[in-house]
Amino acid sequence: MKAAFMYGAGDVRIEEIDKPVIMRDTDAIVRMVRACVCGSDLHPYRSMPKSDQGVPMGHELIGIVEETGSAVSTVTAGDFVIAPFAFQDNTCVFCREGMQTACIHGGWYGTPETGGLQAEYARIPLADGSLVKVPDVDPDTAPADLLASLLTLSDVYLTGYHGAFMGEVTSEKTVTVIGDGAVGLSAVLASRQLGAQRIILMGRHQNRTDLGKEFGATDVVPERGDEGIAHVLDLTGGEGTHVVIEAVGLMPAYLQACGVIRPGGMISRIGVPQYEEAPIGFGSLFGKNARLAGGPAPVRAYIEEAIPKVLNAEIHPGKVFDETLGLDEVAKGYGDMNDRQALKVMIRP
Amino acid sequence: MKAAFMYGAGDVRIEEIDKPVIMRDTDAIVRMVRACVCGSDLHPYRSMPKSDQGVPMGHELIGIVEETGSAVSTVTAGDFVIAPFAFQDNTCVFCREGMQTACIHGGWYGTPETGGLQAEYARIPLADGSLVKVPDVDPDTAPADLLASLLTLSDVYLTGYHGAFMGEVTSEKTVTVIGDGAVGLSAVLASRQLGAQRIILMGRHQNRTDLGKEFGATDVVPERGDEGIAHVLDLTGGEGTHVVIEAVGLMPAYLQACGVIRPGGMISRIGVPQYEEAPIGFGSLFGKNARLAGGPAPVRAYIEEAIPKVLNAEIHPGKVFDETLGLDEVAKGYGDMNDRQALKVMIRP
Repeated sequence: MKAAFMYGAGDVRIEEIDKPVIMRDTDAIVRMVRACVCGSDLHPYRSMPKSDQGVPMGHELIGIVEETGSAVSTVTAGDFVIAPFAFQDNTCVFCREGMQTACIHGGWYGTPETGGLQAEYARIPLADGSLVKVPDVDPDTAPADLLASLLTLSDVYLTGYHGAFMGEVTSEKTVTVIGDGAVGLSAVLASRQLGAQRIILMGRHQNRTDLGKEFGATDVVPERGDEGIAHVLDLTGGEGTHVVIEAVGLMPAYLQACGVIRPGGMISRIGVPQYEEAPIGFGSLFGKNARLAGGPAPVRAYIEEAIPKVLNAEIHPGKVFDETLGLDEVAKGYGDMNDRQALKVMIRP
Repeated sequence: MKAAFMYGAGDVRIEEIDKPVIMRDTDAIVRMVRACVCGSDLHPYRSMPKSDQGVPMGHELIGIVEETGSAVSTVTAGDFVIAPFAFQDNTCVFCREGMQTACIHGGWYGTPETGGLQAEYARIPLADGSLVKVPDVDPDTAPADLLASLLTLSDVYLTGYHGAFMGEVTSEKTVTVIGDGAVGLSAVLASRQLGAQRIILMGRHQNRTDLGKEFGATDVVPERGDEGIAHVLDLTGGEGTHVVIEAVGLMPAYLQACGVIRPGGMISRIGVPQYEEAPIGFGSLFGKNARLAGGPAPVRAYIEEAIPKVLNAEIHPGKVFDETLGLDEVAKGYGDMNDRQALKVMIRP
């Protein structure tokens, strides 16, 4: 079968490898219907040292169950499923607290053992916890936009949702979303879903911020840095917003968040931080009782509530996909996203 | 009148200065009944560069209103009052959101303009927002322990309460309190008040941790650093606690907090951070969705609910005071607290 591997910055290849097999009785094998490229894949695409050993890529997937291990009980061959971007048993103490990305028995795709999901087939560990069946949809006949929206429940939309949820967005609170990538736009849509009336989107790519407006952004701030902070403060009577969702992961975005957060407000980070140390002392967070939340989204905690909203066409998070490529062309997908020629690239088998 | 000033590390002096006068029609003049020395006063006591200009000290006070400006309506001469450690109008948009330490018109004591509260008299700006009347108590005849407990509502107990409140302590959550100073012990008592059943106190001074147990700590961990983290993890089945209240303000305490916080948990800081940058990336907070809260306590938001608990003897937060000195002896009070001869020093006129 074909699968995507990264060998260094800018070097993504499709290779022919063995089809995965059941290794544990809790595994399932899933045939990919759609996969995609994640903004977080672009970090290694820009910085990974050259390597002789390719890293298997991809962690977003909808597909058809081909085979299940003997201990799997919630999905069966032929089921149409979504795979959250991390695997988990969904029964451990942290899973039960809604923190499935901290599952004691869970882990990440893209390792030599587990493989990546930009592939024709995938081995899904702990399938009972890691696959969620989509009822009454035949992927062979379903509309393309429905498949796209279901695919976002694997990661991008529910990562945006996690940002809004951990940011404690309500209809009473003002929100700033930093970043007009697919995750930032998803955070706009999720904030609207949680009732926010005022959503300021910080982004400067008009085709993206236009989608942000369609998703619910009420204001767009194209400036960055101090100028961007000043603009948001100006829009909010100098007060800042109750919630800031930081959907970039770079230090300048974090500093913007500190600049526009209201006293007592919540900065919720969903861009994977490309830094370890950052200001959190009196001059940044502490002095104004600003709070900080966020991390890898426990998609599994949110997915069951989100599926009907997609099936009922209440939300259309799949609009973040603006390019679809065959698996053979995945390298072009990385390049297009990296060059901002594409917002988010969907992959067909 | 007499007032305390700091001229550099280890150099606190009582000086004779003019009694303060009403400067704005929203001011009140208060005669000190009790004041005290704060753990946060010890930071400059250890590090302040020598200066010819003394810094007025103190921000905790109970006293009798002597005189009020013409615009003051909620307190009047003769009232027995508590002064929260920051002043505020208690009407601005941030005050109404419970963030009085971010009051648009508020500020801090200990500036040349406002003066300190380790003094015979104090000018209290925005008296309607910054003084809270204690009903039916005559400080001349009230028991010493009642005065002590009322004094803690000026800062230390309600700072501990803020830590527990922002940490979102409930009866369902486990709590670690880092630091056995007066603020840490207050956080233990407040966590108990908010229903916590399991409170692990990290501290190594037995007289202090004994008071912590009396306040509600169920476990005491004397070790620090990696050893302390391992001990807390051991006590919690490797899971860490849902809440960590960091009541020290130094980097090693913050790192301990990161080490013992449970995935999805809340680190609530009430020790004034003596650092600006700290780890918050994937390896510390982000990877496990740990959250961060805290800042200067909006005492004003909590004080009205706390006064009856003290008057009804439901709580005895004044037990953190283990030494009482006259204002003339305040320098000894700083020294005793710095040398850990005293947990917290109360000041009489």
